[in-house]
Amino acid sequence: MISKNLIKLIKSLEQKKYRKREKLFVAEGPKVVGDLMALMAPQRIIATSEWYKGKQVSEDVVVTEDEIRKVSFLQHPQDVLALFELPEMEELPVEQLSDHLTLALDDVQDPGNLGTIIRLADWFGIEHILCNLGTADAYSPKVVQATMGSIARVKLHYTNLADYLEQLQDAVPVYGTFLDGNNLYAEKLSPSGIIIMGNEGNGISEQVERYVTKRLLIPSYPAERPTAESLNVAIATAITCAEFRRKN
Amino acid sequence: MISKNLIKLIKSLEQKKYRKREKLFVAEGPKVVGDLMALMAPQRIIATSEWYKGKQVSEDVVVTEDEIRKVSFLQHPQDVLALFELPEMEELPVEQLSDHLTLALDDVQDPGNLGTIIRLADWFGIEHILCNLGTADAYSPKVVQATMGSIARVKLHYTNLADYLEQLQDAVPVYGTFLDGNNLYAEKLSPSGIIIMGNEGNGISEQVERYVTKRLLIPSYPAERPTAESLNVAIATAITCAEFRRKN
Repeated sequence: MISKNLIKLIKSLEQKKYRKREKLFVAEGPKVVGDLMALMAPQRIIATSEWYKGKQVSEDVVVTEDEIRKVSFLQHPQDVLALFELPEMEELPVEQLSDHLTLALDDVQDPGNLGTIIRLADWFGIEHILCNLGTADAYSPKVVQATMGSIARVKLHYTNLADYLEQLQDAVPVYGTFLDGNNLYAEKLSPSGIIIMGNEGNGISEQVERYVTKRLLIPSYPAERPTAESLNVAIATAITCAEFRRKN
Repeated sequence: MISKNLIKLIKSLEQKKYRKREKLFVAEGPKVVGDLMALMAPQRIIATSEWYKGKQVSEDVVVTEDEIRKVSFLQHPQDVLALFELPEMEELPVEQLSDHLTLALDDVQDPGNLGTIIRLADWFGIEHILCNLGTADAYSPKVVQATMGSIARVKLHYTNLADYLEQLQDAVPVYGTFLDGNNLYAEKLSPSGIIIMGNEGNGISEQVERYVTKRLLIPSYPAERPTAESLNVAIATAITCAEFRRKN
């Protein structure tokens, strides 16, 4: 049985203000919950008795599949939903940048795109993502789900991106993708530095663009053919990160 | 003014059976409608007077922004919605395969993923996509929108993929991505052939896998680190297509 108060709490966590107030976020499904539990203890677990079987956790709330439907944010509810403590937001130390590749998102808006980017960052061993303050919140149920568990391994740092880049004073190369940049494949790419990806509609903002030291372009094929105007931001992020890793 | 019958018709086109019956599909927004109009005449246009201004088309249905809300499938309705004739499904001639790169989707289910794949195929000059019969329908409003206009330039061929591949008899290389394939970057990649991408949850099906002649893997980084189990299918498609184009 799940109490009315708990249902109300979970439902409220769809909104950022309640996540901040309660310092909690929601994760669903054995894969995502399992990946998070490998790194942090859940605050609450709502699961079917099937899910608890053989697990090293004491039973918290045991529900039927029908009951989990009442709190799930998924179209196809799975057999576990858990609440985890919202990680403390920490400033990313500048020293961390000099021997790692780091992503920076300049207001990526779509939760699906953000989740997909966190997942691919994990794949490519990018442990930290800087997010400008207009970027979608990574702890909304939609984003957490789209990361497929990678939210457990990739750290997000929400910050005023222009201010953050200002203090770097050219300590590391700052890459950005543009429709008039230099061919990604012809460029030397450093094994460390920041890769900035822009907003879905507007790309990289002027305030942030000032700090880009290397402008990259993902070439379309063949060059002269009429084609899509641009690539989806998660797609562009993937192709760029893959090329950095291929070269290094 | 927009008639009740027209509203009803447009709303019905969210469902495949009505798209098939009416032989129509919906596109929205100046970019997507414009890209389609460059290639085919719309059957109906519902737009604000603002949108018609300066266009070489006679006014069909003129509506206010409020009225367009009644028929739009978008969260943020734009100032034009148009109906286009559903293209005739044609079998992709085998001869076409021998000097082109072709994508094949083995039951990609998510409309957002399918739309994103059509958009990136356009970017990489892939003109034809084979879709196994369980693949999401490319003419649903969600997919059309996610293609950002690329649906106008990329041709879709729904077919029994295993049967189609059977008749090829090794005429072209058939690539597929697998978690135990050979490093994509170390492999010779042909400038033509078929690249198969699998379903979101299950990957490439057994029936289709039989026809794969070259198994590819997108390496994670660094190799030994615990990471995401897999990449989103649109992301994997993008990285694979980009590498084919880089090499050729």
